Amino acid sequence: MAKGRVCLAYSGGLDTSCILKWLLDEGYDVICFLANVGQEEDWDAVEKKALTIGAKKMVIEDLQKEFVEELCFRAVQCNAQYEGRYLLGTSLARPVIARSLIGVAQREGCDYLSHGCTAKGNDQIRFELAFYAIQPSIKIIAPWRESRFCDRFKGRNDLLNYAAETGIPVTSTKAKPWSMDENLAHCSYEAGILEDPDQTPPNDMWIMTDDPLNAPNEPTNITISFEQGIPIKLVTPQNTFTDSVELFKELNRIGKVHGIGRIDIVENRFIGLKSRGCYDSPAMTILRLAHLDLEGLVLDAQVRSLRDQFVTHNWTTYLYNGLYFAPERAFVENSLIFSQKCVNGEVRLSCYKGAAYVLGRSSSTEKLYSEEEASMDSLDNFGPEDATGFIKIQSIRLKKHSEEWAGRK
Amino acid sequence: MAKGRVCLAYSGGLDTSCILKWLLDEGYDVICFLANVGQEEDWDAVEKKALTIGAKKMVIEDLQKEFVEELCFRAVQCNAQYEGRYLLGTSLARPVIARSLIGVAQREGCDYLSHGCTAKGNDQIRFELAFYAIQPSIKIIAPWRESRFCDRFKGRNDLLNYAAETGIPVTSTKAKPWSMDENLAHCSYEAGILEDPDQTPPNDMWIMTDDPLNAPNEPTNITISFEQGIPIKLVTPQNTFTDSVELFKELNRIGKVHGIGRIDIVENRFIGLKSRGCYDSPAMTILRLAHLDLEGLVLDAQVRSLRDQFVTHNWTTYLYNGLYFAPERAFVENSLIFSQKCVNGEVRLSCYKGAAYVLGRSSSTEKLYSEEEASMDSLDNFGPEDATGFIKIQSIRLKKHSEEWAGRK
Amino acid sequence: MAKGRVCLAYSGGLDTSCILKWLLDEGYDVICFLANVGQEEDWDAVEKKALTIGAKKMVIEDLQKEFVEELCFRAVQCNAQYEGRYLLGTSLARPVIARSLIGVAQREGCDYLSHGCTAKGNDQIRFELAFYAIQPSIKIIAPWRESRFCDRFKGRNDLLNYAAETGIPVTSTKAKPWSMDENLAHCSYEAGILEDPDQTPPNDMWIMTDDPLNAPNEPTNITISFEQGIPIKLVTPQNTFTDSVELFKELNRIGKVHGIGRIDIVENRFIGLKSRGCYDSPAMTILRLAHLDLEGLVLDAQVRSLRDQFVTHNWTTYLYNGLYFAPERAFVENSLIFSQKCVNGEVRLSCYKGAAYVLGRSSSTEKLYSEEEASMDSLDNFGPEDATGFIKIQSIRLKKHSEEWAGRK
Amino acid sequence: MAKGRVCLAYSGGLDTSCILKWLLDEGYDVICFLANVGQEEDWDAVEKKALTIGAKKMVIEDLQKEFVEELCFRAVQCNAQYEGRYLLGTSLARPVIARSLIGVAQREGCDYLSHGCTAKGNDQIRFELAFYAIQPSIKIIAPWRESRFCDRFKGRNDLLNYAAETGIPVTSTKAKPWSMDENLAHCSYEAGILEDPDQTPPNDMWIMTDDPLNAPNEPTNITISFEQGIPIKLVTPQNTFTDSVELFKELNRIGKVHGIGRIDIVENRFIGLKSRGCYDSPAMTILRLAHLDLEGLVLDAQVRSLRDQFVTHNWTTYLYNGLYFAPERAFVENSLIFSQKCVNGEVRLSCYKGAAYVLGRSSSTEKLYSEEEASMDSLDNFGPEDATGFIKIQSIRLKKHSEEWAGRK
Repeated sequence: MAKGRVCLAYSGGLDTSCILKWLLDEGYDVICFLANVGQEEDWDAVEKKALTIGAKKMVIEDLQKEFVEELCFRAVQCNAQYEGRYLLGTSLARPVIARSLIGVAQREGCDYLSHGCTAKGNDQIRFELAFYAIQPSIKIIAPWRESRFCDRFKGRNDLLNYAAETGIPVTSTKAKPWSMDENLAHCSYEAGILEDPDQTPPNDMWIMTDDPLNAPNEPTNITISFEQGIPIKLVTPQNTFTDSVELFKELNRIGKVHGIGRIDIVENRFIGLKSRGCYDSPAMTILRLAHLDLEGLVLDAQVRSLRDQFVTHNWTTYLYNGLYFAPERAFVENSLIFSQKCVNGEVRLSCYKGAAYVLGRSSSTEKLYSEEEASMDSLDNFGPEDATGFIKIQSIRLKKHSEEWAGRK
Repeated sequence: MAKGRVCLAYSGGLDTSCILKWLLDEGYDVICFLANVGQEEDWDAVEKKALTIGAKKMVIEDLQKEFVEELCFRAVQCNAQYEGRYLLGTSLARPVIARSLIGVAQREGCDYLSHGCTAKGNDQIRFELAFYAIQPSIKIIAPWRESRFCDRFKGRNDLLNYAAETGIPVTSTKAKPWSMDENLAHCSYEAGILEDPDQTPPNDMWIMTDDPLNAPNEPTNITISFEQGIPIKLVTPQNTFTDSVELFKELNRIGKVHGIGRIDIVENRFIGLKSRGCYDSPAMTILRLAHLDLEGLVLDAQVRSLRDQFVTHNWTTYLYNGLYFAPERAFVENSLIFSQKCVNGEVRLSCYKGAAYVLGRSSSTEKLYSEEEASMDSLDNFGPEDATGFIKIQSIRLKKHSEEWAGRK
Repeated sequence: MAKGRVCLAYSGGLDTSCILKWLLDEGYDVICFLANVGQEEDWDAVEKKALTIGAKKMVIEDLQKEFVEELCFRAVQCNAQYEGRYLLGTSLARPVIARSLIGVAQREGCDYLSHGCTAKGNDQIRFELAFYAIQPSIKIIAPWRESRFCDRFKGRNDLLNYAAETGIPVTSTKAKPWSMDENLAHCSYEAGILEDPDQTPPNDMWIMTDDPLNAPNEPTNITISFEQGIPIKLVTPQNTFTDSVELFKELNRIGKVHGIGRIDIVENRFIGLKSRGCYDSPAMTILRLAHLDLEGLVLDAQVRSLRDQFVTHNWTTYLYNGLYFAPERAFVENSLIFSQKCVNGEVRLSCYKGAAYVLGRSSSTEKLYSEEEASMDSLDNFGPEDATGFIKIQSIRLKKHSEEWAGRK
Repeated sequence: MAKGRVCLAYSGGLDTSCILKWLLDEGYDVICFLANVGQEEDWDAVEKKALTIGAKKMVIEDLQKEFVEELCFRAVQCNAQYEGRYLLGTSLARPVIARSLIGVAQREGCDYLSHGCTAKGNDQIRFELAFYAIQPSIKIIAPWRESRFCDRFKGRNDLLNYAAETGIPVTSTKAKPWSMDENLAHCSYEAGILEDPDQTPPNDMWIMTDDPLNAPNEPTNITISFEQGIPIKLVTPQNTFTDSVELFKELNRIGKVHGIGRIDIVENRFIGLKSRGCYDSPAMTILRLAHLDLEGLVLDAQVRSLRDQFVTHNWTTYLYNGLYFAPERAFVENSLIFSQKCVNGEVRLSCYKGAAYVLGRSSSTEKLYSEEEASMDSLDNFGPEDATGFIKIQSIRLKKHSEEWAGRK
């Protein structure tokens, strides 16, 4: 009889295949789970491999729609950008994957969850905090943090040997000298040769963006429409997209062609280590720019300032740190959604050689910007002399401070 | 005998020339002041024009060095970006201009300051708050807020007629359908046809950046070195620059060629109106990216987060709103400088067709990033099992929350 | 025919009586308005006086319920305390008064609003920003900012003379050497002899609190119940109160007897001046303490921290500065309400000689606090070794920092 | 030969006496360390007991001065109050104790540090993060987190039996049904019967404050002077104190007599659990009030607001969470000190029956408050009409918002 039933986050790769086999060796029954969050994958091959190795079942769920709508679009509403640069691609996928996995575990009667995350990364935290938050009683097996596992598998060679010994099929393609994680929002590249932060990534590394140097000489102009801060329509020279996933994928396609959205940074992981990461996020880069631009037209200045300082900053950190299922995320997201009621309108952009540019923006419903009032010559609301009073009152405090410090010298 | 002595911020343009003449008509003696903050200007012509119209004196001061070192580089240390986009060019120049102007006024025994700012803009506030803070007793004449002046000059035609009547020389060049303000940090474009936020700016508008579509097909690679967050060296394929102003100008030159730093936004002015502004800021755009990148390598995560949320956000707002000489700016700037002690190192960048890209970064003195520790395989400081404890403790609160809300349903 | 119809905020005092008369002299028709926000007042006498002087109508509205429920209880949910001390009494009343006044003005067909606020205070701003926000087209007559009025009435004597000349009835009671404003939330005392910040207020100044030195030697113990952060029940030794206004008044009564809620501060007004204010706020002081205490038991740590830093700080400032009808107030209040869903429970307090003390707190619905888990001996969720991992991971960053700085010396 | 040399934080109590003995049993040499942070203690008896049990040496260091000056006064400058109530007494002592202990360990050639903190508290974190930050290579033995120790000592009885068996002298006094920690800043009471948050603490629990019900009927009036936010002089009816420790102790004495500074709360521990704590902090309570009051008189409004939101909130959290030796604490403390340059002046207070009251405040050097300017009748800086302009400009944004939302309905 099995020691218990494990639901394993299984990718079909070497690591999780060995973990699957090892769990079986340890006496567990294993259900494998793989989420479709838009990555390139031979789904049938993964299923076949899992079953071949000995999984009781392989469950694959298509989470693209919820990933785009609940996570990616929320990040767009937020203008989320971790440490001023990273668009959170991996962090955004983890919550939907974790939620789906634990649902499968519950339906399949599993007592344990397992994953192939390493002990120094963010993903172990993102997965496990999600698991514990959704089902506090769940038990987790993290092989890369178990000495029995780590002592046995000290490097890639040990895994390859184990695969050979136990008949795990191994793809003949040579491993790349970095690790990757792909989903609709981005592909991430880290570790290996990238650990030298002064090593420029090789051009053939990027899979979701073509090299800007080889991008077309002609820009592609598009229009994105937003409703309450959510992208609802994309008009390209060829077509119109209103389905969330299709719209997102089309932006990825356009962004890929024009080489938009490459980021190469050193970032601060939750556990306190710095790490170097490269990411290409075509659709997210374009959407963030468009949304940010539209907010300039339609969002109140003070609401925006507060939203930036508290909601955006914190929501982004929570997502990065795996706190999606925490009450503080719900708290700030409630604010975010409230702030977006008026973010309605459309933005025209040009995509060209590595970047997107705003060409113009408009809103048929929002009226905070007024072309007449912005003009230099007329304003009903106040007269020029009012500005004098405004400035004089603002200066009271500064004058007092100045006199005080002058007296001090 | 004159009613008093006015120090006028004089540009040589139609507006301030008419103001100069009007102040003379009103019975004041006028000293004209013009700051050199890096704009293109025929300085001798401006002086001649002022004296021709009747100024007692024309004072021109070269403020480029203090502008770059005290303001632009501080903004770089801060990663300053108003409302997520605008690099503050005009806002940065105002404090040094105001300080210099009031110094001239004091040396020349002026009782009044005057300027040509309009009643709906930010600049009147930036200038006057600076004036009042530096010399609380100063009196200010703002013609565009005085009904005697405004009633007389209702539009450009009234100014042209007045110029013709009073012999003010007028340049024959046709006025552009927008207004511009240029300094080392940027050129701004607003008003006129730009007041329609959906009107794409014409390509010949931009003066500090060439069109990315016509930029060279070859990138230019450069290296920028920072000491305590301040750019101290620029290495280009041709040359090395260590003088602050030369370094800054060379970045403007490279950025211009590659079309780097165009921004087109709708922003929130201090007085509560939205306005559309376009800006091209080549050097500032490149420097901001380089500095932001280096901070990833060398700055502590928590200090960075706090600095972003409080110092960067607030310093930027204070500068935009004309509060440079306010105690709150001094307060946050003190924090900023403290945070930059460790921002030492160099960043390699590539400039190409509208954007700059980071190629790599390094620091010979800072050690928060460690290539060995970042690697997946070794870490002295902690063992894999520690991450388990970390996650379990982090999950305590989430589990409690989850149980509570589960019970609620 | 009248120049227009004015709705005047009328108190029956000398200032607004003179303003009423002056407005009539100026040729306006005047509707007087007085809000009942719980102050002591001879309502009939005020009405009679207004009509005697010449008002077309005197409208008195009882706003106590909306004042307590919409403003005071919101401040309690927020733990609002301006600059760490002031419980906002006057600031809380202004929005309901302004809203009611403008409603009367609209029903009575008034084109103008008027009030007796001075030019250096906060109240002019609170009223007028409310008026403009509710009805942007409204016109405001602020006599104390009009030179025609100010030149005529340079001090109290001018008002007394005018009253005598024009037959305005004047109460024979000698004016107190400070000004007062009373409502359910507090009574404020400022100006006059209080302008010396080192002058201890005389004991007979306070009207809503008895002197703690003369308070009963026996404490009064009470229990306050909250639902979603709102006080819903008060149990005293004699009685139980569930009606919002009655509950509030009973707390004022108990607090008065025990001398609870006196505050004496120097505060920063919106216009940039410092001013000295004294306030006694019995009910608000007790409710704030009780609410703050209950939150300790039931509110998540991170939500609380964010709420404190972002919602409480800003909501309080907005109220103080008269920005109740601004979008930023709505934005943070939406967050506040979200945070209060779990603030359910009851707090037992003792009132004694100037202060309230918490005796205990409990909640039958909220379970974040667990007596068993708090105990030193048991916890299912995690084992003692988990804390080791938590601390070790937390220390990674500190060790790196330490090593870096050690190397620096 | 010993396994190594341990420096143990030793209190002389049952727990650390058993730990001392157990470490010796385990084969370590042990140096005992006890800090004098102002607690009541029979120092000779502790030393004798440690040596009797088998310590190589007992080191006692008097840290009162650095505790008061570097920690308590910094907290006063900060108005530090965790979760709006707790004055941080224990959190403030930990850094000086940890720093001193590790200094002893280094001088005595210890490889290990040990302490008696439990696995669910804050103190283990505060101590260990300090240890790791000061000496990253240090090794820590935390017996209450080691299964070998915990399995053996499951409760107080096991400790008593062990003491009896091994000849550890045990005080005959019956253990109190709560645990206590005393230093100059406060005494804390938690655990045991206090774990029921609705259980009112017994009156004989509090050791640093007498019962307000029995306090003198006569208030004691005192004056505290501050320089740059630091208390530098205390004048009482009998005496004047300028030495930091004496001043602090005298305030504790006065506060004790009048029963000032009792706090009873449920708080959020760093590890995510809620716990109930009671604290009496006489001197800190009085000093915080006096400092807060003086800041009203002398600190700029905007600097104060930023300091409150950013420095005070975060410094307090860092101290509570044991992050004193973290770069973020240094970062905010640098800001704090900058903000305090102008906090010079004196505050007169009255102490009476459980609370302190401000009687008045003054500053001979700071001039931001001006009695003349605060008065209703005069102000050079601006005229009444300026307030009109100020309000009108402030209303621009509110009007736009109002129109937009009106149109929406």
